[in-house]
Amino acid sequence: MYVNDIISGACQPNNEPKILKENASTAWVDANNVLGATASHFAMDIAIKKAQETGVGWVTVKGSNHNGIAGFWAKKAADKGLIGMAFTNTSPLLAPTRSKKAALGTNPLSVVAPASKGESFYLDMATTAVAVGKIEMQCRKGEPLPLGWAQGPDGKITQDAELAFKTSCLMPLGGGENTSGYKGFGLSAVVDIFSGILSGSNYGHHIRSWSHTGSGGPANLGHCFVAVNPGSFAPGFEDRMAESIQHWRQLEPTDPNLPVMAPGDKEKEAAKETDANGTVSYVKQQIESSAELAKRLKVKPMVVKFN
Amino acid sequence: MYVNDIISGACQPNNEPKILKENASTAWVDANNVLGATASHFAMDIAIKKAQETGVGWVTVKGSNHNGIAGFWAKKAADKGLIGMAFTNTSPLLAPTRSKKAALGTNPLSVVAPASKGESFYLDMATTAVAVGKIEMQCRKGEPLPLGWAQGPDGKITQDAELAFKTSCLMPLGGGENTSGYKGFGLSAVVDIFSGILSGSNYGHHIRSWSHTGSGGPANLGHCFVAVNPGSFAPGFEDRMAESIQHWRQLEPTDPNLPVMAPGDKEKEAAKETDANGTVSYVKQQIESSAELAKRLKVKPMVVKFN
Repeated sequence: MYVNDIISGACQPNNEPKILKENASTAWVDANNVLGATASHFAMDIAIKKAQETGVGWVTVKGSNHNGIAGFWAKKAADKGLIGMAFTNTSPLLAPTRSKKAALGTNPLSVVAPASKGESFYLDMATTAVAVGKIEMQCRKGEPLPLGWAQGPDGKITQDAELAFKTSCLMPLGGGENTSGYKGFGLSAVVDIFSGILSGSNYGHHIRSWSHTGSGGPANLGHCFVAVNPGSFAPGFEDRMAESIQHWRQLEPTDPNLPVMAPGDKEKEAAKETDANGTVSYVKQQIESSAELAKRLKVKPMVVKFN
Repeated sequence: MYVNDIISGACQPNNEPKILKENASTAWVDANNVLGATASHFAMDIAIKKAQETGVGWVTVKGSNHNGIAGFWAKKAADKGLIGMAFTNTSPLLAPTRSKKAALGTNPLSVVAPASKGESFYLDMATTAVAVGKIEMQCRKGEPLPLGWAQGPDGKITQDAELAFKTSCLMPLGGGENTSGYKGFGLSAVVDIFSGILSGSNYGHHIRSWSHTGSGGPANLGHCFVAVNPGSFAPGFEDRMAESIQHWRQLEPTDPNLPVMAPGDKEKEAAKETDANGTVSYVKQQIESSAELAKRLKVKPMVVKFN
């Protein structure tokens, strides 16, 4: 999808992002339609610098594109001893509570905080109950959806995975109204306020839908990056953070086979596995489509090691 | 409960909050065990001033007490044209995903943003699926709980309102693991990081339980107040905010009798009613207990207008 956007001219990877307005703790950035990752490195580096100087850095970006894993950007700040936050708006997929149709994106948010004892707090979450990928997985497994993941075309909760995948109308975190789905709607809106409404990018229902066809013109997505220096507050932040994380893990589990995990534990386990394997694991279909893409673009294909 | 804490000496309302550490955009405040509302006015005023100077103000508070409605503090900043945020940690009631017992509070967060056309964005939410009050209401109505609100003493989801009320172990926003309750757990943890872990107050499982007995010693709660100046970013924030709010309201509803609401619409309707009545409405039991309290404290009782 990135490549299609570049080929169609919807994304201009060779442009340069630039600062439009700056204050002691803030910057407003125009990504100039570069890749989301380029803009995000640029903007988070500014947030980090400002947090080191004033205690907080708050940077918003307009004119950007899909920027990958929210947690990656938040972690950039945490690697410097700061609390990092990343927000981005995305194409409409989330139906506000009571609405038949989508008006906001999966709008992820991430908060990553440093901790002592080799720990860190790592939260990276869509503000929908689940991402579309999880519905696709239920389709493949031929299993129904849990209540509260997605709506059918009539706006009602559906457990039909195929129908949900076709409708592409996700419910906010919390699911239906009686389980407080309006809170997830509110959080998705907050992500849009920080990313889109503050930055002057496209926002909410104004964002194009994104597809493999590469049509729809520039995305003009908005992001927001925040860094906060724990050193500006009570000493010992990293120790208290580590103590919390370790406390959660040792809580008595409801099911003895399912230990309590701290936010990020699952991701860290996967990272360890990847490090041990010396490579990211892909399913066959992904390897094939990557090889095809390399051929189409006349670039060196990804080196594949079969297990 | 406030009065009991004052009588027992757990809260010292005549102390003065003070700034312990300050940076261009941050302040670390010791509430000195005053009422939460006193500390919150003090701290949010600092956040507002810093946001006007540097674009962002980020203030954390330790040594505080229950500070009432989170949205009230966030709105203080929005009334000055800023985006206001308020966070506080609370006594343990939320069971992390897979845990049999509580380890975090209902930990509310609030984001309030100014908008043109008489609008504003107002989100004030606990990071549990629901607050304890909602379970109490189901008890009174004799109705079962929706799935995902609360756990029984065995750690499993319960729909038994009486059992849930007695157990007092709430599920995070999102409910069980298969509906992404770990996201609500993560959000509750973020509120604790901002409020407690940053400020050096009590945090997570270290916070006392709070009861009408007034026992348990000082609460030493933590809060966090943030103000962000939209004027530091793209011009026209208030118009885009208003357009979003109005767009959500006119979305086609799934049930024609249940129109889509923007975050805060319900609260604004209640406020209008209160203004029209010239008074807050109380149930009989509340009026009686207030009269009893006035008698016990030898203060003038609340003036009551019966309808």
